[in-house]
Amino acid sequence: MTRVALVQMAMVADTEANLETAADRVREAAAGGAEVVCLPELFRAQYFCQREDHALFGITEAIPGPSTERLSAVVRETGVVVIASLFERRAPGLYHNTAAVLDPKSTAADNIAGIYRKMHIPDDPLYYEKFYFTPGDLGFRSLDTSAGKLGTLVCWDQWYPEAARETALRGAEILFYPTAIGWHPAEKAEFGERQYDAWQTIQRSHAIANGVFVCAVNRVGHELGDVLIDGVVNRVPPTVGEVIGQTGDFVVGANPGLEFWGGSFIADPFGRVLAQASQDREEILMAELDLREIEVTRQHWPFLRDRRIDAYGGLTSRFLV
Amino acid sequence: MTRVALVQMAMVADTEANLETAADRVREAAAGGAEVVCLPELFRAQYFCQREDHALFGITEAIPGPSTERLSAVVRETGVVVIASLFERRAPGLYHNTAAVLDPKSTAADNIAGIYRKMHIPDDPLYYEKFYFTPGDLGFRSLDTSAGKLGTLVCWDQWYPEAARETALRGAEILFYPTAIGWHPAEKAEFGERQYDAWQTIQRSHAIANGVFVCAVNRVGHELGDVLIDGVVNRVPPTVGEVIGQTGDFVVGANPGLEFWGGSFIADPFGRVLAQASQDREEILMAELDLREIEVTRQHWPFLRDRRIDAYGGLTSRFLV
Repeated sequence: MTRVALVQMAMVADTEANLETAADRVREAAAGGAEVVCLPELFRAQYFCQREDHALFGITEAIPGPSTERLSAVVRETGVVVIASLFERRAPGLYHNTAAVLDPKSTAADNIAGIYRKMHIPDDPLYYEKFYFTPGDLGFRSLDTSAGKLGTLVCWDQWYPEAARETALRGAEILFYPTAIGWHPAEKAEFGERQYDAWQTIQRSHAIANGVFVCAVNRVGHELGDVLIDGVVNRVPPTVGEVIGQTGDFVVGANPGLEFWGGSFIADPFGRVLAQASQDREEILMAELDLREIEVTRQHWPFLRDRRIDAYGGLTSRFLV
Repeated sequence: MTRVALVQMAMVADTEANLETAADRVREAAAGGAEVVCLPELFRAQYFCQREDHALFGITEAIPGPSTERLSAVVRETGVVVIASLFERRAPGLYHNTAAVLDPKSTAADNIAGIYRKMHIPDDPLYYEKFYFTPGDLGFRSLDTSAGKLGTLVCWDQWYPEAARETALRGAEILFYPTAIGWHPAEKAEFGERQYDAWQTIQRSHAIANGVFVCAVNRVGHELGDVLIDGVVNRVPPTVGEVIGQTGDFVVGANPGLEFWGGSFIADPFGRVLAQASQDREEILMAELDLREIEVTRQHWPFLRDRRIDAYGGLTSRFLV
């Protein structure tokens, strides 16, 4: 059995405080028996992509760097594998949304067994990620760790069956999706439930299609995207207008922030939800995964057997009309 | 608005009677305002793939052939598009599980606007389809009909995100899945609910991933696979043993038949279920589809924009380890 823990956490403006909170949560999870712990997407900061501001490149860091150094100490102390989503500075002017996997058994710098750079980058009102993150160039990956074969994908990747499939074909047994997704306050009442449902449904479908476990870990709480830089809080001035809309309903006003919907969950290889977090509280979500279920499920639902690899060439096209 | 109808029906041993029932249901649906009507998979017979018997090739037919001739009369009479799933005899010894789309506006023989040959063929206890059906060689298709751009896929295809994606990339606005799926009686109590849920979940995920409508139409009723051939009922002798199992529970005994679970449904481009049929009754499930929702949904959830077509080459591999 493999015990996994997802840290559903809320972030404050102080990036150092968030790192210490994350370290504490990893220790708690380890004390609870976890063998692998996944942190939410970009856990070191509030979700700053709510605006485009060059000053925010000031919080980027190298990998290895300060975050992995701090977490590697916790990994060595506790013996757990940690998946950490970071704002990577790869070179001046070249930044990625990167997941680093720290394994106590790894002899690499900061115990970094491998990294994955987010392949699919969104860009929507309040999610201006294309401004900050260069799309990943490492492709999809499965990493053989001391806690199993882990696939790391990040947030927007979760809407792409191609990403889950390629990661599973590389041998991953558990797909982890560090995430930062939430409701626009003006949309929550009308669209909130269906948005959460679609988000969970498509990730459960990746478990089904591939016969793998899926772990999605989201942040929680209402954020204006406050980030402390050099002792000053960087935020969107509340007088700056935002135009947001869905299906014809438009709201114009001051930055309303985002209400991150938590709802982290763990699904088995047939898409059943094994563990489900709340939508409004910090918590550590844990489950025992029996990795033998993967082969049993795939034998009874042998989807991998019958893929028409001779006929999937069109998937590398933008459109086929 | 496009009004679609799914004919959730039960089949008898007499293949002629099933054809007449189907024709009647198409007329009923047309009277209810339907513009496109989809019949279940292989609606002309009980689900004979519960055994491997060469005699059953006796019910194959050409396309165009008797079924399309009969249905084309109904199509011309009612003005609706009909999707008919047939056991196609393409050549001696070469048979397919084929969906034919009959369009009143088509000038082709029997109003056949196009056909699709099931690409993914299952083979599992009581679903011995690889014995009967050669995998399709037409690839994935979208057909421009008088009722819209329709994608036809068949049953086992529904577990493959690749199939839905390629069909959507060819322009399909509505994916139709004629289906024959049910419970083994010995599995229903323990696994029935999760099997239905996985089946619906993955098809809803195709709607979400691609921003298209999805229509799944299943048969209903308990069948031993009786098929009338030359006045004699062909069936599995009840003394022939079957070994069926899931997750370690094995049942040995006479052919128990399959309980087809109905549960036909229609989902919108964000995966919401617009209409849902029962699991135990014949019915015609209808919904009004506003095809403009496709573009609105895709604008707000722009998954097609961000596909990493440079990185999906691995999807044409069997495995990547």
